[in-house]
Amino acid sequence: MNCEVKIHHDENRESLFVKSGENLLEILQNSDFSINAPCGGKGLCGKCKVKITAGAPTVTSQEREILSREELNQGFRLACLVDIKTDLTVELPPEQKAEIVTKGLERKVKLATRVKQFCLSPAEPTIEDQRDYLTRIQDQLPVPVEKVNHSVLEKLEKFKGADYLTAIVKGDKLVQLKLGDPGDGNYGIAVDMGTTTVVLYLLNLETGDEVDFYSFTNPQSQFGADLVSRVNYTLEKDGGKEKLQKVLITELNQGLEKLINRNELTQDQIWEVKIVGNTIMLHSLLGLNAESIVKAPYIPVFTDPVTLNPADLGLKLNSAGEINLLPAISGYVGADIVGDMLAVDFNLYEDWNLLIDIGTNGEIVLGKGNEIFACATAAGPALEGANITFGMAGVPGAISEYEIKANGEIDYQVIGNQSPKGICGSGLMDIIAQLYKQGFLKKNGAFKKELPPRQRMWMTSYEDKPAYKVTNESPAEILLTQQDIREVQLAKGAVATGIKILLNKAEIDYETVNNVYLAGGFGSQINISSATALGLIPSELKDKVIKIGNGAGIGAKLSLLNQKLSRMAEEIADQVDYIELSSHSDFQKIFMQEMEF
Amino acid sequence: MNCEVKIHHDENRESLFVKSGENLLEILQNSDFSINAPCGGKGLCGKCKVKITAGAPTVTSQEREILSREELNQGFRLACLVDIKTDLTVELPPEQKAEIVTKGLERKVKLATRVKQFCLSPAEPTIEDQRDYLTRIQDQLPVPVEKVNHSVLEKLEKFKGADYLTAIVKGDKLVQLKLGDPGDGNYGIAVDMGTTTVVLYLLNLETGDEVDFYSFTNPQSQFGADLVSRVNYTLEKDGGKEKLQKVLITELNQGLEKLINRNELTQDQIWEVKIVGNTIMLHSLLGLNAESIVKAPYIPVFTDPVTLNPADLGLKLNSAGEINLLPAISGYVGADIVGDMLAVDFNLYEDWNLLIDIGTNGEIVLGKGNEIFACATAAGPALEGANITFGMAGVPGAISEYEIKANGEIDYQVIGNQSPKGICGSGLMDIIAQLYKQGFLKKNGAFKKELPPRQRMWMTSYEDKPAYKVTNESPAEILLTQQDIREVQLAKGAVATGIKILLNKAEIDYETVNNVYLAGGFGSQINISSATALGLIPSELKDKVIKIGNGAGIGAKLSLLNQKLSRMAEEIADQVDYIELSSHSDFQKIFMQEMEF
Repeated sequence: MNCEVKIHHDENRESLFVKSGENLLEILQNSDFSINAPCGGKGLCGKCKVKITAGAPTVTSQEREILSREELNQGFRLACLVDIKTDLTVELPPEQKAEIVTKGLERKVKLATRVKQFCLSPAEPTIEDQRDYLTRIQDQLPVPVEKVNHSVLEKLEKFKGADYLTAIVKGDKLVQLKLGDPGDGNYGIAVDMGTTTVVLYLLNLETGDEVDFYSFTNPQSQFGADLVSRVNYTLEKDGGKEKLQKVLITELNQGLEKLINRNELTQDQIWEVKIVGNTIMLHSLLGLNAESIVKAPYIPVFTDPVTLNPADLGLKLNSAGEINLLPAISGYVGADIVGDMLAVDFNLYEDWNLLIDIGTNGEIVLGKGNEIFACATAAGPALEGANITFGMAGVPGAISEYEIKANGEIDYQVIGNQSPKGICGSGLMDIIAQLYKQGFLKKNGAFKKELPPRQRMWMTSYEDKPAYKVTNESPAEILLTQQDIREVQLAKGAVATGIKILLNKAEIDYETVNNVYLAGGFGSQINISSATALGLIPSELKDKVIKIGNGAGIGAKLSLLNQKLSRMAEEIADQVDYIELSSHSDFQKIFMQEMEF
Repeated sequence: MNCEVKIHHDENRESLFVKSGENLLEILQNSDFSINAPCGGKGLCGKCKVKITAGAPTVTSQEREILSREELNQGFRLACLVDIKTDLTVELPPEQKAEIVTKGLERKVKLATRVKQFCLSPAEPTIEDQRDYLTRIQDQLPVPVEKVNHSVLEKLEKFKGADYLTAIVKGDKLVQLKLGDPGDGNYGIAVDMGTTTVVLYLLNLETGDEVDFYSFTNPQSQFGADLVSRVNYTLEKDGGKEKLQKVLITELNQGLEKLINRNELTQDQIWEVKIVGNTIMLHSLLGLNAESIVKAPYIPVFTDPVTLNPADLGLKLNSAGEINLLPAISGYVGADIVGDMLAVDFNLYEDWNLLIDIGTNGEIVLGKGNEIFACATAAGPALEGANITFGMAGVPGAISEYEIKANGEIDYQVIGNQSPKGICGSGLMDIIAQLYKQGFLKKNGAFKKELPPRQRMWMTSYEDKPAYKVTNESPAEILLTQQDIREVQLAKGAVATGIKILLNKAEIDYETVNNVYLAGGFGSQINISSATALGLIPSELKDKVIKIGNGAGIGAKLSLLNQKLSRMAEEIADQVDYIELSSHSDFQKIFMQEMEF
């Protein structure tokens, strides 16, 4: 007699026709449904639990031990104990997906980590079954394992008679064996290694959960706020390169330790560290001189995704674990930008999209499917508030929003609701956009000499040049100088030029662009109206902007949770056609135009 | 105008039709001829030298610098400098093949080592060619490289401007960069790790030459002559397992050092150590307890080919190199037997072949293509002279050949031409075969009680049982006792039984067997007539025996020189169907029959 087994799996429906008496677990496994049965189908581990919504058989005593009364009433059974006698409807548990939710971007990713663990119960050997102990483990693992650690062989010898073992597999290598149940699980760290700030995210590799994070100011800042000064430091000081590497690794280890301790983990539970960062930071982390990146023709030592042993850097994770760097594209388009692209599936769309990551530099990517162009512009730190007379980072005390009302009065927001100490990037954008709108500035960025009295009262001078009084509070007077405006013009001109050159390269116009993804800390803060008013982002693209927040960090997390995305990062990096703006014939001409408001 | 380029390559002839003006090197490379051009076809390295036997163009000044006058006269040119203007006949250099010549077996193998080195001259970067330095190396390498060592990146940064670099690649990993020319080259060590004797062969991985070898007595012998006593030692003594491993590794390191020093190499030039040995020796080398192998159901911890880091065992080779163990088949059919099979291409024949390796145990393999059966018999150390009253190893003083002439006189050979001190395995075979032939022995192996006087004068007694006076020299009297004969009967009975059971399993008879490969030290010494007279090897197979000498060592060398053979070793190990004789229903019955002469 044949029975029909209807299978519901996520949104899928499938019917299998089987002979009466066949085992449900075997049927499911032979039909390529991924169902875990670490005990080998003996009704011991309870992992093959399925919900039988029609035709559920009588409960066995083994099921009564493992499943709750409520589960049994709902129709839950262990597939391994079900011999099919009638038609059944079976609901399989949904595929495990991790959820990464961040400001501006929400996405789910299927869990497919490089390090996985499995609970096994290898069969006892007999004279009829003389498979060696390693083969017994391999035969029970649902993934192919080609290699094995020396330490695993030593453990295997000790654990020969054990009923339950936990095997940890990294790629195609069996890297650890533990007696008994999986216990506390495995973790990975995604690192967003910025020039200014470094963030470590602790992720549970079994569930995909982001458990905790830790951030610190890049300790290399003491040797230079920007990358070029740091590289110069390494060139001028003996042992400078080593010092830059050392302070960074020391802080990374402190961060690792903090995350491990406050989540009650051990160092051995951290199996993988996945790192994104700009190309110079990646070089610095590896103790490599980045001199050739800062001098023409701007050549990195490497851009490929590098895998290191924890001992190579002295990072404190499981010594059999690994450190993986996402690939970079060029000296000035780094792994952070590849992370951004991964975060928005940049290479999977059939229409043109733009991605802009504005920080100390401005990286711009334009792409449609595999056709991707990228460039880097010296946006300069002005947009983050550096090199600005009263500039500061986006921390308490910074003016972050600013408006000049129709009646000439001003209104502004200060981070932390305190009295203003300076101006951060988004405030800066707002102020200049407002000044231009209200007629303080000429198209070329110079303060107008003739201003009506109502406006003139806001003007003063700074180092013999005109300056604008941002606030009228005393005692602290916050000014915006002509030079500050110049700095912002240089920055916004560079970004706008980059966008234009990429569009020219792709032979498309603004209208053809579908979305503009804005990444990076500054990108999240910025007022889009001000940015478009100034021409940092062409006004034609105003309504297409999507802020994605820390795309680099999201990319690192995604690639930690799913190996396919790691490989996709490599593909993306290979697909990108990097355009060197400094050698581009139209650069100067377009840049001069784009400097204007 | 089209030109014809006739290409002679080993025994192959091919014609290519090309446009006038095309470059010969490019033509050859595009046609899949493997021709090395590390300088990138700039006429600098001289590696693309070919002989043009018809149509050789005029010599260029670059060629005059690199090639000798004699070479130029013979028609040698650099392919990269030849622009084809007329029909040509080109002779390519023969494919590099190493030659491994050993007693009883001569074979050539194509060089395809796991570690290879390449001389490169990466192009200088420009603003139009911004490939990173690592990519420049990868693009010049004729093999795909996916991974890179941290230390290589550090070297790469230092060597950025160099004209010439030597890259060393291990598998798909770039493991070393050196400034300038390749220099002294790379070496590997093939190790035949026998129970009694360990041999290290030093091979040049660039040429395939066997440069030197070094052998020593297995230092574990002090803890037991046979494997079972050694395993018992590890069970009885605390730290015994560690001691067995330590003495072995200490001696291996001394051997490595000797080979390195006397050939004026450095430790860093040794990149791979390839090891064969029986399963218990492999376990002992890795510091693993072999208890489960010596007790039923005889289960090894591992049989798969294991790769270790030098640091795992503390072996003194290049720390980025690796130690590879050939796969074993079961607890009693080890990697040494896989080596034997590799040495004779055992799995590549379309008819049935038998392979017998007789040492302390007797391993027997019967196979045709992928259908392979193997078993292990407790041949016992008797066949090597152990457990025999006057037995000794095949060293000076041992009777190695023995004849009882028709007139009753005896004739024998002593190793080293000195007075006899004892009997080694081959002598033992001869003596017993002769005793049976001359009617001293009954079919069941017992000395006849009634002997004619001419024979009776050779008889005496030993511990109240009859014994044969092997020599009549004084003062030393060498005897062969009834017990000695019993020991040999047990051994030969076990081997003969194994052969019979495998033939039954394959359902073939003696006639169907094509060749009988006899491997191992004892196998090389043995007198085939005596062995077949005694029934150690069935007399039906007498004319089919081919002695292959140390097949295990040959297999190790072959797999060191050619990665395909390493993979083939894995395939062979997977293909073998291991027959456990102790559980075989016919074993006792056949064994009792085969004990008789």
